[in-house]
Amino acid sequence: MRAAVLRAAGDVVVEERPTPSPGPGQVLVRVRSVGVCGSDTHYYEHGRIGRFIVESPLVLGHEAAGEVVELGEGVTGLVPGQRVSVEPGVPDLTCEQCLAGRYNLCPQMRFYATPPIDGAFAEYVLTHAAFAHPVPDGISDDAAALLEPLSVAVWACRKGRVSAGSRVLVTGAGPIGLLAVQTAIAFGATEVAVSDVNPARLALAGDMGATELVDARSASVLDLPRAPGVLLECSGYPPAISEGIRALAPAGRAVLVGMGGDEVPLPLSVVQERELEVTGTFRYAGTWPTAIALVAAGRVDLDRLVTGSYPLERAADALTAGRRDQHSVKVVVRPQT
Amino acid sequence: MRAAVLRAAGDVVVEERPTPSPGPGQVLVRVRSVGVCGSDTHYYEHGRIGRFIVESPLVLGHEAAGEVVELGEGVTGLVPGQRVSVEPGVPDLTCEQCLAGRYNLCPQMRFYATPPIDGAFAEYVLTHAAFAHPVPDGISDDAAALLEPLSVAVWACRKGRVSAGSRVLVTGAGPIGLLAVQTAIAFGATEVAVSDVNPARLALAGDMGATELVDARSASVLDLPRAPGVLLECSGYPPAISEGIRALAPAGRAVLVGMGGDEVPLPLSVVQERELEVTGTFRYAGTWPTAIALVAAGRVDLDRLVTGSYPLERAADALTAGRRDQHSVKVVVRPQT
Amino acid sequence: MRAAVLRAAGDVVVEERPTPSPGPGQVLVRVRSVGVCGSDTHYYEHGRIGRFIVESPLVLGHEAAGEVVELGEGVTGLVPGQRVSVEPGVPDLTCEQCLAGRYNLCPQMRFYATPPIDGAFAEYVLTHAAFAHPVPDGISDDAAALLEPLSVAVWACRKGRVSAGSRVLVTGAGPIGLLAVQTAIAFGATEVAVSDVNPARLALAGDMGATELVDARSASVLDLPRAPGVLLECSGYPPAISEGIRALAPAGRAVLVGMGGDEVPLPLSVVQERELEVTGTFRYAGTWPTAIALVAAGRVDLDRLVTGSYPLERAADALTAGRRDQHSVKVVVRPQT
Amino acid sequence: MRAAVLRAAGDVVVEERPTPSPGPGQVLVRVRSVGVCGSDTHYYEHGRIGRFIVESPLVLGHEAAGEVVELGEGVTGLVPGQRVSVEPGVPDLTCEQCLAGRYNLCPQMRFYATPPIDGAFAEYVLTHAAFAHPVPDGISDDAAALLEPLSVAVWACRKGRVSAGSRVLVTGAGPIGLLAVQTAIAFGATEVAVSDVNPARLALAGDMGATELVDARSASVLDLPRAPGVLLECSGYPPAISEGIRALAPAGRAVLVGMGGDEVPLPLSVVQERELEVTGTFRYAGTWPTAIALVAAGRVDLDRLVTGSYPLERAADALTAGRRDQHSVKVVVRPQT
Repeated sequence: MRAAVLRAAGDVVVEERPTPSPGPGQVLVRVRSVGVCGSDTHYYEHGRIGRFIVESPLVLGHEAAGEVVELGEGVTGLVPGQRVSVEPGVPDLTCEQCLAGRYNLCPQMRFYATPPIDGAFAEYVLTHAAFAHPVPDGISDDAAALLEPLSVAVWACRKGRVSAGSRVLVTGAGPIGLLAVQTAIAFGATEVAVSDVNPARLALAGDMGATELVDARSASVLDLPRAPGVLLECSGYPPAISEGIRALAPAGRAVLVGMGGDEVPLPLSVVQERELEVTGTFRYAGTWPTAIALVAAGRVDLDRLVTGSYPLERAADALTAGRRDQHSVKVVVRPQT
Repeated sequence: MRAAVLRAAGDVVVEERPTPSPGPGQVLVRVRSVGVCGSDTHYYEHGRIGRFIVESPLVLGHEAAGEVVELGEGVTGLVPGQRVSVEPGVPDLTCEQCLAGRYNLCPQMRFYATPPIDGAFAEYVLTHAAFAHPVPDGISDDAAALLEPLSVAVWACRKGRVSAGSRVLVTGAGPIGLLAVQTAIAFGATEVAVSDVNPARLALAGDMGATELVDARSASVLDLPRAPGVLLECSGYPPAISEGIRALAPAGRAVLVGMGGDEVPLPLSVVQERELEVTGTFRYAGTWPTAIALVAAGRVDLDRLVTGSYPLERAADALTAGRRDQHSVKVVVRPQT
Repeated sequence: MRAAVLRAAGDVVVEERPTPSPGPGQVLVRVRSVGVCGSDTHYYEHGRIGRFIVESPLVLGHEAAGEVVELGEGVTGLVPGQRVSVEPGVPDLTCEQCLAGRYNLCPQMRFYATPPIDGAFAEYVLTHAAFAHPVPDGISDDAAALLEPLSVAVWACRKGRVSAGSRVLVTGAGPIGLLAVQTAIAFGATEVAVSDVNPARLALAGDMGATELVDARSASVLDLPRAPGVLLECSGYPPAISEGIRALAPAGRAVLVGMGGDEVPLPLSVVQERELEVTGTFRYAGTWPTAIALVAAGRVDLDRLVTGSYPLERAADALTAGRRDQHSVKVVVRPQT
Repeated sequence: MRAAVLRAAGDVVVEERPTPSPGPGQVLVRVRSVGVCGSDTHYYEHGRIGRFIVESPLVLGHEAAGEVVELGEGVTGLVPGQRVSVEPGVPDLTCEQCLAGRYNLCPQMRFYATPPIDGAFAEYVLTHAAFAHPVPDGISDDAAALLEPLSVAVWACRKGRVSAGSRVLVTGAGPIGLLAVQTAIAFGATEVAVSDVNPARLALAGDMGATELVDARSASVLDLPRAPGVLLECSGYPPAISEGIRALAPAGRAVLVGMGGDEVPLPLSVVQERELEVTGTFRYAGTWPTAIALVAAGRVDLDRLVTGSYPLERAADALTAGRRDQHSVKVVVRPQT
């Protein structure tokens, strides 16, 4: 099979690799669509993310969908031909975190495109059968792939306990922020304010249902007409984090999704006086059924995020699309083309 | 002022009564619309509900909206002319339950149209300012009145922890059941099954977004394609309660809204083996802001429930509309007409 | 190895069986102590419990402790000689319930001494390494075995959200009830009422810290000086269940641990008016670390429950000890003697 | 009556003031004991705390107990002579926060010894009857006063969801930290590590049940044998806050009790990767019943914290006792002496 391999920063080539065979409990998936995530681009540009360093050739891509083509020993409940969305991380299932239902915190997690685990910019990938989620016909291949970033937004809304009538602030209107807008509304939020410095992104957020748009170059989330109860922080920009927290109503929750570095100044006295809850998200757990249900029911539209698609041979172009085109939101690689 | 007074079972007359004056912290509301609840009809027909007995003349009606006309001492935040929805129960605010945020369980609660407290089938009512909730212009008087039954549905969805992607079963498609359907969807439910014995009610439930309709005369909720995670029981019919609980998925929640009597046989072994949570609702607490937000945002449509309106003089007709007309869903009394 | 095998109701014999070998991820445990549970006695007397029927020879016993003697492929974190308490159920780890942290509700659970899965009245048992919990030296073999029934009590207290200052009612002072008393106190309960019809059991409950003893032959839990907030129902006796629920304070929780049959009359109007939560327990999930910590810290004393011990050859006597001696509380089988 | 009045930083004098009369719903309490809090000392030394400035003479003291001597109109449930512990803040009871059970976040809160509200360094104080909590005979006057700081610890343990078997880290062993140790154990914690730079305080923490003592001058909480699940941060020292958070296990909770200033650097990447919850406490809500139950049951010992007592005339000495004597833990003022 062909796979797009990152050999070093800035160096991606398509290689022939042996098609893997599914072990016990695994399935082989023919990949139809893989979303490009900011982390893929970061690995491509820098060869590392924090303590994760690309020391040997790595296949990128962790937002994948396709169809099951082969079943490993003992697999039931899936058949060849079944279209699936692939959850990219497989935990050990037996550690304290897994048994408590927090498998995203499993220290033995094997996650696509995180060195040294290969990802899905390839014609085929293996996964554990329980992490290959069947999708109904109404969900396109691209949308099935984008259930992964949607899971990030679903997880953030759960952590923030977004519910009917919630007032939500989303800081940062990149792909995750835009999904956070749609997802918060799907969770019942009736006011969703969005802040960003990019007017095109803000306009898109408005198209997706945001009720208040804050151009952070000239306005402040501290001036919202009503203080939000939930912050979904998707920018990772420390001043935005601090200001977003300050904007919260008493007993509000701040969910830090965007990665902003290590020691970040946070408004401790505000956290205390208003008894805010500040937490962060690390991937997700148990989100695919919800994400599938939301897309199948038309509550979230993933296809409209897709602004470009590329064959495997143009993986490098896909990885840099966001850098070249400010109107790019989300691009996908389609390895079968 | 005029008020429709229940003197005994079946005996309602319009009387002249002195218009009350607001005490400290109270407001006087000119009533524009009052919904008729099944409990009003029950008092009218039987002169009692359980241990609550109409022993002296009683004004019925507890789903009221109108406009503020006079402020008692110390009231701030409201002005004459403000349109409000009236929350019909005022607790003592200082008991253990109130201080814990469960004011609906306050043993000193004073609740409209519950003997000996008069209700809102009158030109004017008094309430505590904190329980007169301002409504925006986009919400009609009738809808403002029906925020009360919507609060019942909002409370049930909260108790059942309905969230994005939930699968919900609503048993009983009366006014509360129909609101439960709309509200569950507003909370993010993507599958909502409804059971009833009345095809017209089921059709209406379908119009309101139910995804599965179960005619209980010929089908069973036990045969749903996927077991629901939440039961919102709105029929009060013991066999429906038991069967609804049996229909639940493991770790499901049953919220018993309909009143079904005292000792009711429930499937204990199912509750244990699936670790179901069974709870009931008693009115609501802190639901108006959510209910208002849902209606204002167009997530719930209350006006479409209204199938008839009556002047105060025809209160008896309003109270019996549901008995006379099987297509009647919700009627309102408009005391100013 | 020797194992005590139930061939039919009332027929237990010791047989020689091949000592099993641990498969991948498993460990072989030399059994030191096994508690006798009421369910073991029920299988012995009736050959079945509900839909679980002993159709082929079955080894009873699911409260086991011992020492690791052999490791299967891939096992890390355990070494031969390690003393362990054995969690008797191993789930499939990958179903929806397992991934949500509710592995006790796994439909593929394999649980000791539940037909057709053999239990631990044997010299050796196999288990999955993750379910063999190391115990410190200060915990005796018998206590290590009784971590299983303690887990039932821990799970009940979690379900009931027992916390500092809770007022708890325990109905039924059998072994689980007595452990519920100790465990509720360890969770911070400051008032623990216990009801039973057996004065000796009540006295023992008092020794274990119960603050109020109710002899159900002559008194009622409805007359407790202060209404409890949590019911831990350990009798399974329907009138006790109903009365226990009626005794609860508003917003109270009833946790039904004792098995009381299928359709049981419950006080629905009380559940609704007080907004009680009624739930049941089915085994437990993630309780061993807590149970071990409580015993190691001296907060719960398991050894004092043990009123008799038997060699494997006298398994039948162990199974019937509770029937013969009303002062018997908990007996253990020690297969190495 | 006599009252100790702070006229300016460093200037406290005893004045004669008229004994107040209870208004409707209020009671007059003859004060027997008032604890001295660090905030009292801070006002005494600096004339302000943050944005709260002593601009006119202020009576300090908010940890008070005494006996009811006079009832205002409408008060039931209390009688003259009843010993009570006084909850020092009275909210408006009707705002959104109050109705949600979070009355500590009420923006209209009137709190003793917070400018311009007078406190309890006086022979008599008024309070709302619902905030005068009866105490049993077994609780001394001093202990009844110290139910206030105990409430801080109870609230912190609730926020941190300390439960049976929890592993807790307390940073800072001042009076609140020492109470946090006792309270965490009363909530069921089985491992309680404490860090401080004062060996005498650490020794006292050990006496109160701490299982691990960390002298922060030479050791680090990052080296604890097992990572704690809950941090109760009682030092307010920014490096301790950051390090305490870093010490937490995945899914841990950090409760920030000590006040550490506004923009404080916090380890954001750790919060995200481990999905920690960081929150702060602002006073407490609904804690007195729990605090009373814990002291009455002997689970928490408040009297042993008291290292000195002073008459009203020596209020200044009481306020500076902690500065003069490093073995001072908690001193009380007894206005009747």
